[in-house]
Amino acid sequence: MSRWEPNTKQRLKQIAMDLFDKRGFDETTIADIAERAGLTERTFFRYFTDKREVLFDGRAALEDVFKDTIATSPSSAPLQMVSDALVVVGEFMESQRGRAVAARRQRIITANPELQERELLKMNYLAVVISEALQKRDVDRAAANLTADIATTVFKNAFIEWVNGDNLHTLNDCINDLLAQFRVIAISE
Amino acid sequence: MSRWEPNTKQRLKQIAMDLFDKRGFDETTIADIAERAGLTERTFFRYFTDKREVLFDGRAALEDVFKDTIATSPSSAPLQMVSDALVVVGEFMESQRGRAVAARRQRIITANPELQERELLKMNYLAVVISEALQKRDVDRAAANLTADIATTVFKNAFIEWVNGDNLHTLNDCINDLLAQFRVIAISE
Repeated sequence: MSRWEPNTKQRLKQIAMDLFDKRGFDETTIADIAERAGLTERTFFRYFTDKREVLFDGRAALEDVFKDTIATSPSSAPLQMVSDALVVVGEFMESQRGRAVAARRQRIITANPELQERELLKMNYLAVVISEALQKRDVDRAAANLTADIATTVFKNAFIEWVNGDNLHTLNDCINDLLAQFRVIAISE
Repeated sequence: MSRWEPNTKQRLKQIAMDLFDKRGFDETTIADIAERAGLTERTFFRYFTDKREVLFDGRAALEDVFKDTIATSPSSAPLQMVSDALVVVGEFMESQRGRAVAARRQRIITANPELQERELLKMNYLAVVISEALQKRDVDRAAANLTADIATTVFKNAFIEWVNGDNLHTLNDCINDLLAQFRVIAISE
């Protein structure tokens, strides 16, 4: 139980996601997760602040990818900067999770209104982070806010297409498809 | 107290908003609002289900304007349909509230994280309503979702510009300005 294990966090996460998916998020306790992992609840709390954190701990990494890519984008056009970032985010998420894991997470969140709200708030906060990153690149506030909302909209919709799609399409295929659709919508009269 | 008064709801709302703005939303009780109006709490509950409802009771009307305008828009281009709807919504909101009232409501919401979440959820639900209205006009699901998110994004940002702006700009000026900015962002490389 107290043996040092580098993958304890990953293992806890895996077990928690299995239980959330099978039993439901509300029906799963931290005690259940710890027991199944052969660990104590105290060990769980060494890795996660609460049960929801298992589903949302990738947030900081996602924000960092957006911040870093926007800061170093060779373009100065707002939409191009966020498009550059979206491509890096797409690769990052695909390498981190893969579609099956992302789809399971999505299923857990969709089944629970409280988690849906949390996901929505996370997206809203991500838009704030993106807007700030754009403003540091001298985009004015109004354009930065609008572009940030466009970026999270494209990301959110691409993500849904990806997890509901087949294995033939990567997240980046979906992001590029949504960016293209976005341009078509924007110029159609 | 029991005298029938057609403007009781409006008067309760006015008094509630005054108190929310001066004392804070959490610090104002329904008893405070009723007392100031010379009414009972029971009368308050005849008009509003709870305290938050005072701030969010315009939601259904807003959704209806979007639904009706999209259903009858002469265009079949998704962005044009939502642009038509935004213009009608802009006029509707300006006539219903005016900038000073909208700005006060915005101030109350900005001061309270829980109300901010509620506002965000409201916007998200509005996007669902818009997407459904677009799908009834034969826009496919992915394009409808994306366009609906663009519409709420433009609306949200235009609304912020309007309430933070001066009396020289109507909400529709801000909506048209944001739609124009949106097009510039969408086509810039």
